[in-house]
Amino acid sequence: RRCHHRSTAMLDVPFLPFCTFLATLGLLCVAMVGTWCQHWRGGFSLDGSSRTFNWHPVLMVTGLVVLYGAAALVYRIPNTWSGPKLPWKVLHGTLALGAFVLTVLGLAAVFRFHNSQGTPNMYSLHSWMGLATVLLFSCQWAAGFGAFLLPWAPAWLRALYKPIHVFFGSTILMLSVASCASGINEKLFFSLKNGTTAYKLLPAEAVFANTLGLLILIFGVLVVGALARPSWKRPDSDSPDSRQVWDALGG
Amino acid sequence: RRCHHRSTAMLDVPFLPFCTFLATLGLLCVAMVGTWCQHWRGGFSLDGSSRTFNWHPVLMVTGLVVLYGAAALVYRIPNTWSGPKLPWKVLHGTLALGAFVLTVLGLAAVFRFHNSQGTPNMYSLHSWMGLATVLLFSCQWAAGFGAFLLPWAPAWLRALYKPIHVFFGSTILMLSVASCASGINEKLFFSLKNGTTAYKLLPAEAVFANTLGLLILIFGVLVVGALARPSWKRPDSDSPDSRQVWDALGG
Repeated sequence: RRCHHRSTAMLDVPFLPFCTFLATLGLLCVAMVGTWCQHWRGGFSLDGSSRTFNWHPVLMVTGLVVLYGAAALVYRIPNTWSGPKLPWKVLHGTLALGAFVLTVLGLAAVFRFHNSQGTPNMYSLHSWMGLATVLLFSCQWAAGFGAFLLPWAPAWLRALYKPIHVFFGSTILMLSVASCASGINEKLFFSLKNGTTAYKLLPAEAVFANTLGLLILIFGVLVVGALARPSWKRPDSDSPDSRQVWDALGG
Repeated sequence: RRCHHRSTAMLDVPFLPFCTFLATLGLLCVAMVGTWCQHWRGGFSLDGSSRTFNWHPVLMVTGLVVLYGAAALVYRIPNTWSGPKLPWKVLHGTLALGAFVLTVLGLAAVFRFHNSQGTPNMYSLHSWMGLATVLLFSCQWAAGFGAFLLPWAPAWLRALYKPIHVFFGSTILMLSVASCASGINEKLFFSLKNGTTAYKLLPAEAVFANTLGLLILIFGVLVVGALARPSWKRPDSDSPDSRQVWDALGG
């Protein structure tokens, strides 16, 4: 038994240092996607050129990955487990709304770029995955707002919907990081075509953006793992009734 | 309270029908990746041409997604919760080994294709993600075999390693489906370049393979969700000691 306790202590990472690490990793992803677009892809503008496209990866990584991850983790902060719940609900909903606004602007950037270049929209698997992710996110936000922030939803409906909301919370993040990976991959194939900077020759830009892709995946895996960890969940979800419903959908 | 019970009953999908659905979805993914390569990409051979490459997506989807998913879900079958555990351990390890063998053959197919065409290996984000996934899988299999199937590991080491094994089990599957999505996306950009079948004109092949990509993502999300669902977990992992360690890493 003593050995068990020793191993437990070794594995039981406290939440706040983990969160600090995660925040650093998230900010690093944002800084790297900005650096990629600024240093190698010509920077940013609103003129419909590839410099307009550059807003797309920056806004998607910032909104649909990093800010989304921050919103998802709000209820894992131990301070949220006691006292009035409404302020934390408002924080969760506001961060998610911020993530959603950046995401919509990120979509607008790529549609504007395609339209001004005469390129069709929505043909690649990346675009299908990405749009499915954004549509799920919009349903998630609207249903969460209606069920948990508006005062009209009855308790049984909240209890029914909560595990569904939790399940889709992790699912949307998984789809989002998978979309980022396929997007970075295809952008590098589009951009790195010339003799000395061809993608297959692995120039500095390719190493940099591949590394960014891996860091985004690690960020997503760590957030999904943190959300699934039983000891970091809000204990009040363990009351008998809500736990049954909770268990029913694997919350 | 009655409402809670009603909602619980509504949400509480039984495991075996869910598994049947998942098996059907997995077989559909295998059938579709085979059909894509056979019908649109020229079929299969071992001559180093693109027909050798075609083994790569088929073996990866079959091994690293579908068979891997089946291996991961073995301990969620209620029959495995009583009686001797060794036969189920052997089944879990054997299915995972089968998945690993197909995965290695799938890697061999793409390396053989690249080498015979003079294309460099391991430059794209897809290849980095994919190889990281396979390396994690090989560590996972070897460590699982050493800790759980060989008789030498002490109980405290097994209890310490189990939540890590469970965490990486889901992580590897997430990375694997993200790798598949980026791989299908880049293969379609490589293959569909001509005037009337350009990817951006969304020919039948593109619709078919994009749909395959979405189905693989849905399969991955459902397996990861099933693994995370508390009521489907083996109850004996709830004994006080193992639960502490379990909770420590979010198993």
